Amino acid sequence: MKNELQVKFGQRVRELRKERGWSQEEFADKCGLDRTYVSGIERGVRNPTLEVIGAIAIGLKIPVRNIFLEF
Amino acid sequence: MKNELQVKFGQRVRELRKERGWSQEEFADKCGLDRTYVSGIERGVRNPTLEVIGAIAIGLKIPVRNIFLEF
Repeated sequence: MKNELQVKFGQRVRELRKERGWSQEEFADKCGLDRTYVSGIERGVRNPTLEVIGAIAIGLKIPVRNIFLEF
Repeated sequence: MKNELQVKFGQRVRELRKERGWSQEEFADKCGLDRTYVSGIERGVRNPTLEVIGAIAIGLKIPVRNIFLEF
């Protein structure tokens, strides 16, 4: 299932990853997540938990609030 | 299981709810969530999904980013 918030979150994660020039695989490794899971997040088909959101922020080396700047 | 991010999130949600003078039950109704689930979130023992975070922001009538100001 897709929903607006998931889609927006996925687009934001993809944008932040690409800014860093990382592949999905490199990024997934940095987050400690599976590449297919990261792919699902970026496509907006996954509903990540707060814990996963925290892992993504750590992988990106930014505070959680920076992911949500425009949310 | 508790973790730091869940605890911080729960404290923030409780703070925002109390600022509004709402009981957990009133607040849960506004979010479309179960009161026991909201209680678990506030105590930091639940790992809410992005969808639930969105429902909480709607219940509080604030943008999602405002929940995460200090995260």
